[in-house]
Amino acid sequence: MRAAIFNGPHSVTVGERPDPVIQSPTDAIVRVVLACVCGSDLWYYRGITPHDVGPIGHEFIGVVEAVGGEVTAVKTGDLVIAPFIFSDMSCPNCLNGSTITCPAGGVFGDGRIDGGQGEAVRVPLAGSTLVPVPGEGHPDEVLKSLLALSDVMSTGHHAAVSARVREGSVVAVVGDGAVGLSAVLAASRLGAERIIALSRHPGRQQLAKEFGATDILEERGEAANEKVLELTGGFGVDSSMECVGTAEAIATAFAIAKAGSTVGVVGVPHGGPSYGEVFFRNIGWDGGPAPARIYIPDLMRDVLDGRIDPGRVFDFETDLDGTPGAYASMDERRAIKSMIRVSSI
Amino acid sequence: MRAAIFNGPHSVTVGERPDPVIQSPTDAIVRVVLACVCGSDLWYYRGITPHDVGPIGHEFIGVVEAVGGEVTAVKTGDLVIAPFIFSDMSCPNCLNGSTITCPAGGVFGDGRIDGGQGEAVRVPLAGSTLVPVPGEGHPDEVLKSLLALSDVMSTGHHAAVSARVREGSVVAVVGDGAVGLSAVLAASRLGAERIIALSRHPGRQQLAKEFGATDILEERGEAANEKVLELTGGFGVDSSMECVGTAEAIATAFAIAKAGSTVGVVGVPHGGPSYGEVFFRNIGWDGGPAPARIYIPDLMRDVLDGRIDPGRVFDFETDLDGTPGAYASMDERRAIKSMIRVSSI
Repeated sequence: MRAAIFNGPHSVTVGERPDPVIQSPTDAIVRVVLACVCGSDLWYYRGITPHDVGPIGHEFIGVVEAVGGEVTAVKTGDLVIAPFIFSDMSCPNCLNGSTITCPAGGVFGDGRIDGGQGEAVRVPLAGSTLVPVPGEGHPDEVLKSLLALSDVMSTGHHAAVSARVREGSVVAVVGDGAVGLSAVLAASRLGAERIIALSRHPGRQQLAKEFGATDILEERGEAANEKVLELTGGFGVDSSMECVGTAEAIATAFAIAKAGSTVGVVGVPHGGPSYGEVFFRNIGWDGGPAPARIYIPDLMRDVLDGRIDPGRVFDFETDLDGTPGAYASMDERRAIKSMIRVSSI
Repeated sequence: MRAAIFNGPHSVTVGERPDPVIQSPTDAIVRVVLACVCGSDLWYYRGITPHDVGPIGHEFIGVVEAVGGEVTAVKTGDLVIAPFIFSDMSCPNCLNGSTITCPAGGVFGDGRIDGGQGEAVRVPLAGSTLVPVPGEGHPDEVLKSLLALSDVMSTGHHAAVSARVREGSVVAVVGDGAVGLSAVLAASRLGAERIIALSRHPGRQQLAKEFGATDILEERGEAANEKVLELTGGFGVDSSMECVGTAEAIATAFAIAKAGSTVGVVGVPHGGPSYGEVFFRNIGWDGGPAPARIYIPDLMRDVLDGRIDPGRVFDFETDLDGTPGAYASMDERRAIKSMIRVSSI
């Protein structure tokens, strides 16, 4: 089969990989329909974090082509959403909401395990990992939104859940990337009354508004902190969501959080808050990699019912051969998020 | 009146202070019955953190001697518990569980405001701060336990609440000081099934057991982490409580926490977790200075009904003139916690 391959920083090519086959009775083989590039893919693409040479991509939807003897939850022909993490959903960690630490689990496209940016994927622990999509003949816009559930929308939702967003909350989202925009949509879905989005990019501001943002702030750093405090009577927001991971963004997310609140952190942290400083304001944190498998069923219902359209974060589209360009367009900040159309349903 | 005065590191004396008088219609004057020394008092005593020269002590119970015109929630003659923070309980921060950040509030005995280690205290915002104790003729052991609610037991409870301790939880408490021991008692009260206490001190181990600890570990650092993981099938505890604040204790508290859990942090942090490391295990934190005023009514009912006896943390007792010795005994680790008997009811 053909698949995108990481060769080293700034080098993604599309080449040949062995066709995946069932290796364990808990495996399934999924033919990929849609895949995409994650903001976290850019770290190794840019040479910031290490990554094995090999297959890449951890977000995809596709059609089940074969299942192992022990797989009963999905069957051949099912359209399925793959969460970016495969997991057994029965160990103490999975049951505690941390699928990323499942001892039997892993992440697709880590250089050794098949990635979503290819024609097919061997999915380990398929029965507890894949989520079958009910119905048939879903329009393309719905398929794109289902693809978004594999990571980016689940991660935005995790930011909102971790930050305890609820009906009537006043919230702020730090970060206007695809995750930040998804967090805006997630907060709106959970009933937030006022959603302050920090963004300087006109296109992203527009999508943030369409996703439910009520206030757009272009300020950064201290000026952003002051503006949010001004908008909230000096007390800060009920729920602050950190969707970037830089030291500056983290500092802002904690500075604008109301005393006694919990900051939802989903941006992989490069830096961190001053534990001592936030301690005296009773500010906690919660978050980390999203347990997408737990969130997908609920979010999928809303996608299928037309209540949310998270697929609108995709503003660049190509085919499998165009995968190098999908990376470059995000690397060069020309795209919010790149989608790869691999095959038809 | 006579009161303990901080003169500088390692210098506490008992001297004369002006008799407190009502200065605002929301004030009350409380004659102190019992007071005590907090672990946090040792920081300025030892010269580690700055503190104004002047009155000290933020934990006390006493009898109301006078109230301002606007105080209706307590009256002259009431036996009252003072939380260590006075607060208005109506601002956004107080309503969000963060009394320490109440803009109108403060902490007793900060060098300027009267401290509990004296004959009387002017209590600002008395109606929203003081908790009247129902009934009369409470035995001395009950009074000591009521005193413990002003800070140490409320703080231990805050660790347990912040760490989401619930019926059947497997928990660990890092720290065998008075707060750590109180956290053991609080976890037991909330229904924890297994309580692992980290302690090397025989007397504290004994009290920890009496407060409900099921396992005592003498290991520290990596050895402690390994032992807790061994006791929990390799997954860590449901609820980890940090009641020390040193970098080593914090590292342990986060290392032994199960993926997906929230660490309750009440030890004032000197150091902090590696945000990046715990992020990938979906571990959050919650805590900070306890909103004692919120917890006292519930905990008081349990004290009065004889269900908890947090006053057992006091293992050194003196009178007001003996306050310097109360500090020295804790500084020299001869006492877990020192009580000062200021007057009779």
